[in-house]
Amino acid sequence: MNEAGVDLGGLQAAPEIRAQAWLNTPAPITLAGLRGRVVVLHAFQMLCPGCVAHGTPQATRIEHTFAGAEVQVLGIHTVFEHHAVMGRPALEVFIHEYRLTFPIAIDMPGVRSPIPQTMQAYELNGTPSLVLIDRAGRVRLSHFGHIDDMEVGARIAALLAEAAPALVS
Amino acid sequence: MNEAGVDLGGLQAAPEIRAQAWLNTPAPITLAGLRGRVVVLHAFQMLCPGCVAHGTPQATRIEHTFAGAEVQVLGIHTVFEHHAVMGRPALEVFIHEYRLTFPIAIDMPGVRSPIPQTMQAYELNGTPSLVLIDRAGRVRLSHFGHIDDMEVGARIAALLAEAAPALVS
Amino acid sequence: MNEAGVDLGGLQAAPEIRAQAWLNTPAPITLAGLRGRVVVLHAFQMLCPGCVAHGTPQATRIEHTFAGAEVQVLGIHTVFEHHAVMGRPALEVFIHEYRLTFPIAIDMPGVRSPIPQTMQAYELNGTPSLVLIDRAGRVRLSHFGHIDDMEVGARIAALLAEAAPALVS
Amino acid sequence: MNEAGVDLGGLQAAPEIRAQAWLNTPAPITLAGLRGRVVVLHAFQMLCPGCVAHGTPQATRIEHTFAGAEVQVLGIHTVFEHHAVMGRPALEVFIHEYRLTFPIAIDMPGVRSPIPQTMQAYELNGTPSLVLIDRAGRVRLSHFGHIDDMEVGARIAALLAEAAPALVS
Repeated sequence: MNEAGVDLGGLQAAPEIRAQAWLNTPAPITLAGLRGRVVVLHAFQMLCPGCVAHGTPQATRIEHTFAGAEVQVLGIHTVFEHHAVMGRPALEVFIHEYRLTFPIAIDMPGVRSPIPQTMQAYELNGTPSLVLIDRAGRVRLSHFGHIDDMEVGARIAALLAEAAPALVS
Repeated sequence: MNEAGVDLGGLQAAPEIRAQAWLNTPAPITLAGLRGRVVVLHAFQMLCPGCVAHGTPQATRIEHTFAGAEVQVLGIHTVFEHHAVMGRPALEVFIHEYRLTFPIAIDMPGVRSPIPQTMQAYELNGTPSLVLIDRAGRVRLSHFGHIDDMEVGARIAALLAEAAPALVS
Repeated sequence: MNEAGVDLGGLQAAPEIRAQAWLNTPAPITLAGLRGRVVVLHAFQMLCPGCVAHGTPQATRIEHTFAGAEVQVLGIHTVFEHHAVMGRPALEVFIHEYRLTFPIAIDMPGVRSPIPQTMQAYELNGTPSLVLIDRAGRVRLSHFGHIDDMEVGARIAALLAEAAPALVS
Repeated sequence: MNEAGVDLGGLQAAPEIRAQAWLNTPAPITLAGLRGRVVVLHAFQMLCPGCVAHGTPQATRIEHTFAGAEVQVLGIHTVFEHHAVMGRPALEVFIHEYRLTFPIAIDMPGVRSPIPQTMQAYELNGTPSLVLIDRAGRVRLSHFGHIDDMEVGARIAALLAEAAPALVS
């Protein structure tokens, strides 16, 4: 039972990110290393119109709104189509042009599947997707498509307000 | 010390609303009667462009985003200029045309002052203003002008996550 | 046949504006006196949400976009409901708060009808309505509701490009 | 002297488009072949944020607003930086994802210059740029950056209203 009296025992532990590379960070990042913080995972493709118009700017707004709080925004480039033109060099230009500053993982290519591995592990339906992971490392929201800023702010703040787990968890 | 370990002893208790009338509610509302809930106070004037464009639609979004939660959105029509054309009949048309559904108080006129009494008590600087009142009836935010949806959502959710006070408070 | 080879003979001559008062102008304005210019008539009500959000700001953009051209933007306050709260004093506050600078007529009240006289004469279906009158004083567009800026700009420019009629017309 | 009494003799004839390839058209397009029509040239780069957010959607709106009129919208992909990741395969994905339907030229690479040849010929300052070419094949507007829809609509309509030149021009 957590502090709100809800049994979270059945919640999915967030699968670890499987990155072939990390950008915007001096070193690779693991969810395990972020335990105790709220993690916002923004899954996107650089040529997905809904990502460029809504999801990615929203991720930047999350980064700014919760600056200084125990929140970590992570992008994950989950290319599941048009792989040839959304490789690392193209993504680096995209990050530069759109001035993205949060760390971004390049998802590990799928094995015998166009869908990359982290995207598969999270069972995402497409891009953009927003995944919220609580301080204890559990998936608390996985949303495909548009979601309002106010609701996003509320959900992150609600997770922030939860007590951090004992670090042995 | 509250549940987050922050001493809120110095916080202002939210002054009671002094209404000459209430609209969109079968009976007058008191903050005292809302103790235990988070109260969102949207102070506006019906002919204030910033209210019509931003503040009032945001109040409606708050109402919808937190529907079902222990949040009460209240409007307060704090007319401090052009009183003659923003009286109750005009406000009623405004509420009808803009399909506002949250309860709205008409602030009690000031005594020897154009500024109405609740607006004075809250020391608001103008309209729109957003005031957040916690479950214990204390003012936790008083913001004049534009404020982003994400931050509003986060602040309300943070207050929601606080334990309700003992009802003897 | 006009200069584009289209027979405009059947077009409605724009009915003269029947104003009980004019605001934002030192003297009353007549369409007859504007012959030779393109006239943009913005019919609105100050408490009509679609007017405040779209129609009225668009009229201001027309004024600015065609500043210096032979275009005259005119507002007409065509109150057909809630008359009591949209009288001249209220409209004056509205004009002040929204910083409207184009001349605005207050439509003459209807006789045994809530619909004011100019609104009746133009057979408008509601507010906001945009009426375009050509250099020869003929109605060339009467549009109720939302209309895109690009199309508005194109239609006004097309009328501007027409030769001015001989002033004896 | 043109029909508006303005001497356009000094105007620049629009340089012919130098394309290495054309997309969204069964055959290459020449400005010469469009003489008599108004041509809207939208110069962009697929990874330029201002293009994606404003310029390119505006080009689509032009296409729709002037559908049926003697207006031809043409895109030109004028890549002057990050060439490696904005080649034809990437552009094809961009066109597909953003559902662009107007013909798009891929500008011919510059000789000993990162700036492609058509972009050089038009002396464009960057992307997005909007170039309007009149029925006689002359450049009448070359605008770098944001420009309002209303003004764009007005300028195109003004060019449309000009008499087509004798086709011997």
